Amino acid sequence: MTAALIGLDWGSTQLRAYRYGERGAVEAVRTLPCGVRQLPAGGFAQAFAQALEGWPAAPVIACGMVGSRNGWRETPYLDTPADLDRLAAALTPLAAPDGRAVHLVPGLRDPARPDVMRGEETQVAGALALEPPMARRARLLLPGTHSKWVEVRDGAVVGFATMMTGELYALLRQHSILGAALPAPVPDGDAFRRGVRAARDSGAAGMLSRLFSARALLLDGALAPSSVADYLSGLLLGEELRAALAAGWAAPGEPVLVVGDEALCERYLRAAEAFGIGLRRAPGDAAAHGLWRIAAAAALVPGHATAA
Amino acid sequence: MTAALIGLDWGSTQLRAYRYGERGAVEAVRTLPCGVRQLPAGGFAQAFAQALEGWPAAPVIACGMVGSRNGWRETPYLDTPADLDRLAAALTPLAAPDGRAVHLVPGLRDPARPDVMRGEETQVAGALALEPPMARRARLLLPGTHSKWVEVRDGAVVGFATMMTGELYALLRQHSILGAALPAPVPDGDAFRRGVRAARDSGAAGMLSRLFSARALLLDGALAPSSVADYLSGLLLGEELRAALAAGWAAPGEPVLVVGDEALCERYLRAAEAFGIGLRRAPGDAAAHGLWRIAAAAALVPGHATAA
Repeated sequence: MTAALIGLDWGSTQLRAYRYGERGAVEAVRTLPCGVRQLPAGGFAQAFAQALEGWPAAPVIACGMVGSRNGWRETPYLDTPADLDRLAAALTPLAAPDGRAVHLVPGLRDPARPDVMRGEETQVAGALALEPPMARRARLLLPGTHSKWVEVRDGAVVGFATMMTGELYALLRQHSILGAALPAPVPDGDAFRRGVRAARDSGAAGMLSRLFSARALLLDGALAPSSVADYLSGLLLGEELRAALAAGWAAPGEPVLVVGDEALCERYLRAAEAFGIGLRRAPGDAAAHGLWRIAAAAALVPGHATAA
Repeated sequence: MTAALIGLDWGSTQLRAYRYGERGAVEAVRTLPCGVRQLPAGGFAQAFAQALEGWPAAPVIACGMVGSRNGWRETPYLDTPADLDRLAAALTPLAAPDGRAVHLVPGLRDPARPDVMRGEETQVAGALALEPPMARRARLLLPGTHSKWVEVRDGAVVGFATMMTGELYALLRQHSILGAALPAPVPDGDAFRRGVRAARDSGAAGMLSRLFSARALLLDGALAPSSVADYLSGLLLGEELRAALAAGWAAPGEPVLVVGDEALCERYLRAAEAFGIGLRRAPGDAAAHGLWRIAAAAALVPGHATAA
């Protein structure tokens, strides 16, 4: 067994390790519940050893919250605009206890807002590599706890914005009067669409003026307790799309490439129909491809220095 | 000692009891930590007895969450438009274990949204009684966990909307990445104004597109950890005002009467300066006055049947 590269997508909630063959094909994947938030103090070296156990020696590249203030080693953000070559030139080497060098991908900072990302820059690099026509000019959405809306020109991330949609949803479901003390949710596509439309029809006033409708509809008997979760989900995804249109991160008819978990992307695709936004799901594993491309651009992978 | 009326403002977090003299003057006030959310099952009768202990027999009127689904007795909502006479005609009597009748003020429901309130209808009645010129046509704001924006025409509440500003603030401070693991907040008026402006300048995109700035500014070193609370407070109050303008609950130059806790009202007054909204604090104890006025309109108070 040989390996050309080992890549780590090391986020808040999990660590995913990729073993690559010579031409960048992913030959093995491991997912460990060793996200930066779960690890005890000093737990990085042990999780690292566990992730790579039994794999051959190879250059290692890592992206995500592992490079944050609460990570293994804090790496500075790289200001936008940032393309693949700038990412590759800004890798921060970290010596693991076993002597290996781990090359940390920097996060990005958009100084215009300001806003920051860690890990998504690698997914963007991967998604653009998988769809070369997009690299010239593209809009991307990476939905999640902290959704990122990204604008790309000439292969470089020129700006981005974070929307805390997923975190707000979790807070409202777990701790608010809207979501607490409800029975287990039952999937309800109608309630989801109803939430999406409520956000859309709020106009410039936005979600804050409609959130309480989840409670009022429940008290009215117009929304089943088990459907509140999907209504809230629709309301929040709808608000994100409404805000993205208002802020210019999306425009009717212009395609937006969505990168992320399949089920979540499907939800966004359904919600986007109500707004006339042309979301399209990116193919493949964007993080895996991004790690490879950045490593290649940094000449960590022999013979691929110019592959970028 | 005699009493013309006993009034209870019985909300989620506390129970306030008023003892009134002949002409509606409040002669004693008791505040008990017996909100509807704190009480054990069956705790209403005991809290009621405690609130009235030693007070003479008198008609009793009560408003607030005591009439909700989780209250002492659920009373139906009264649909808007609703004026003092309709509120008074819709009182629901409840027999307390000691034989007294407690007259529960109904909450209001705005069928156009739908939206609901319980307790604020009484504060609105009181605020309008304290400022008779406002009763013909007024806009009111009752800020709090669930802020209410209210429109009054010819003495009747014709519509209202809830904004969950206070609850969202608490969730973000206690449970989100923005507020968790921060040192104790230190009052910072500049951070508050900065948050207000960030919400205002978000335009139609709104708060969701700016929430994460609390994190990015912190990481940037541009916001002190102890100032995040005031920045978030400004962001959320600013968003509420921005949304109120966008939805037509407020308009530049038109006065809005603010009813509520003094410190909170002061915050809203400061935030409103950035929007050109003319907030003005209502004088007096609106709940106490409202309970008296509704009781008088219901002829619970002898000789005051026409005082409304």
